[in-house]
Amino acid sequence: MDELDRLISPGAATALVRSKVSLLPAESVPLAELAGRVLAESVVSEDDLPPFPASTMDGYAVRAADGEVDRRLVGDRFAGKMDELTVGPGEAAYITTGAPLPAGADTVVKVELTEETGGVVRLQGSPGDRKNIREPGHDLRKGEEVAAAGTLLTPAAIGLLAAAGRTTALVGRRPRVSILSTGDELVEPGERPGPGQIRDSNRFALLAALNGLNADVRYAGLAPDNADRQRAFLTDRLADSDVLITSGGVSMGRKDLMKQLLPEIATVHFRQVSMRPGKPITFATGGDGAMIFGLPGNPVSSLVGFELFVRPTLLALQGAAWPERPRLLVRLSHDVQPVQRTDYVRAIIRREPDGWSATATGDQGSSRLASLAAANALLVLPPENTPYKAGDLVDAMLI
Amino acid sequence: MDELDRLISPGAATALVRSKVSLLPAESVPLAELAGRVLAESVVSEDDLPPFPASTMDGYAVRAADGEVDRRLVGDRFAGKMDELTVGPGEAAYITTGAPLPAGADTVVKVELTEETGGVVRLQGSPGDRKNIREPGHDLRKGEEVAAAGTLLTPAAIGLLAAAGRTTALVGRRPRVSILSTGDELVEPGERPGPGQIRDSNRFALLAALNGLNADVRYAGLAPDNADRQRAFLTDRLADSDVLITSGGVSMGRKDLMKQLLPEIATVHFRQVSMRPGKPITFATGGDGAMIFGLPGNPVSSLVGFELFVRPTLLALQGAAWPERPRLLVRLSHDVQPVQRTDYVRAIIRREPDGWSATATGDQGSSRLASLAAANALLVLPPENTPYKAGDLVDAMLI
Repeated sequence: MDELDRLISPGAATALVRSKVSLLPAESVPLAELAGRVLAESVVSEDDLPPFPASTMDGYAVRAADGEVDRRLVGDRFAGKMDELTVGPGEAAYITTGAPLPAGADTVVKVELTEETGGVVRLQGSPGDRKNIREPGHDLRKGEEVAAAGTLLTPAAIGLLAAAGRTTALVGRRPRVSILSTGDELVEPGERPGPGQIRDSNRFALLAALNGLNADVRYAGLAPDNADRQRAFLTDRLADSDVLITSGGVSMGRKDLMKQLLPEIATVHFRQVSMRPGKPITFATGGDGAMIFGLPGNPVSSLVGFELFVRPTLLALQGAAWPERPRLLVRLSHDVQPVQRTDYVRAIIRREPDGWSATATGDQGSSRLASLAAANALLVLPPENTPYKAGDLVDAMLI
Repeated sequence: MDELDRLISPGAATALVRSKVSLLPAESVPLAELAGRVLAESVVSEDDLPPFPASTMDGYAVRAADGEVDRRLVGDRFAGKMDELTVGPGEAAYITTGAPLPAGADTVVKVELTEETGGVVRLQGSPGDRKNIREPGHDLRKGEEVAAAGTLLTPAAIGLLAAAGRTTALVGRRPRVSILSTGDELVEPGERPGPGQIRDSNRFALLAALNGLNADVRYAGLAPDNADRQRAFLTDRLADSDVLITSGGVSMGRKDLMKQLLPEIATVHFRQVSMRPGKPITFATGGDGAMIFGLPGNPVSSLVGFELFVRPTLLALQGAAWPERPRLLVRLSHDVQPVQRTDYVRAIIRREPDGWSATATGDQGSSRLASLAAANALLVLPPENTPYKAGDLVDAMLI
């Protein structure tokens, strides 16, 4: 047997894929388009935020040392204004949330605890020291890191970049991706399959799976099992892609062209992963550092292979830490027969009063997409000699 | 006190918002652009899939009743081909994964369990009945529902639509959204704040939060505290939006214009939610059924309000069931002082050998976006009279 056909574990396969990731170059992107991108620089605040002591309440700015006595109203201080207003002993200024504390004042009494009549402000009790004041640098200190390189830019992180005055940021370039479905049996979804044919679903499922990963899709097509055409396609796509995804043609059959062609044009790293579904997955690198994933033709296998290897790769290429899906410990609601490989069982997990329960989504055939469409998790069941029993606690990946 | 200023619980507020959702009209969208959209029709398979008995392995199609005897090779059957090939008694045909079973054959022996020499196929033992065959309708049965109205279209669901021959699908129209940041203290991120000013971060954080929700953003801008201008803006935007999001101007201050203006042009349903952060949240409806969310100006409050009320609304408008974030039971790693409202504590949750632990992300001031940027969950702490203690189990929303 070819050394490349040696079965490797999903963990070893993941480590191999990770080791081949080279960061894509950074590009500058406008603030309004940064959602979901991966920061490629460290952003530091150049100022204290807020730059002034600000009120956190609508109320009255006073001097605490004056105690409980009524104050004489000397003016208003609204957010966005910075005037000459000063609060002296026995005085108060009306102040709104976010407005700078007037000179002289050192505490704010919220409006609900006051009563203002004819220019006199009465307080309920004595005000505390420096109450309801947001001190300079409370939100961000000058020199503080706003976001580190490698940060996946969430709404809050993007808000911080805006607050720090950034109108653009350097982020990892969008990975260029090409997708090819292969197989003589495939026709386009709009065509009526002839005898022995089925419609191509993988290309559309994989395109959808790219959603939200910042992929720059350069090509998505369908090719019959013709070695010359597929070789030409692969060469052409390698020159224009950071990630090349094929489905079909990687198994043991005589017409499994991808398996034959990839070694001609790229360096193959593995071809068999000890997992179900998705055992025949080819991973190769070629061209100018392109990552090539030869996924199986069965629709569930192809999407599970994408989930385990391609999705994390796309984010890692942009500079993110290898992203793992959240995992939960769940209780099996029925027995599961183990297999000789790590079994990724499509399941519905539900929160019960005493924890999470998991139920497989029916027949787990690797062509039965409905088993994946109905699932909200993949149970991760390592090979075992004895059956998994109802009540066993197992790991579930949220998908 | 105005009846509208009555505090209502987050649950009652959610129910009120949900009750005002009217489904947007459906639109037809091409298969390649359906990711993340919400299906507005029931899609039924018009055929069995596969339409023929297919091999699930590369191997040999034979008759089981022949037992262990050597078979005479009579041909090949590749995927995508349907020829006259027939397998008679004592005969075998080479077959690849996905290829239709030849007439006469009733079982498939996988290639690893065979040896072919000079047109003779030797089997390891007797083949079982109908082994390695995917029966017609295994993946989808004729008349079976492929996906129901209201399905959020995942990659697997889109693969199923393709397999069923759909090139388009009816989905809920993208909600038209307008966003306005308000406040005299705000300047654009590219500007240097003058005395008493800060940069607008909410608009960019909210824009980013819309990512992945199929929002059709019609407008995103910044307005000073000028009643005429804001009124004109609101009227204009209501005519062109399904969802209108403002931030700022909803609190107790004298310049809180949104609070004053919204009742003039819309029906206000609530103005105060018993939550922290984000108590002053206004929800109103106006125009031709537009949903209006007056979020607070503090950046954390505005994003938490978006998360609880606006995000689910946007998906529900497209026809999805009211989407809840997954929740986990987590163990507090420190005490937390309760407040009089439901406290949404920004926290980092980690999986430990004995379950999940939760640690708050430092100062929980509602202006301190860093507390949210660092978080992967919001702890949901209802009001209590006694402190939450380290070790207590509490609910965490994954964000």
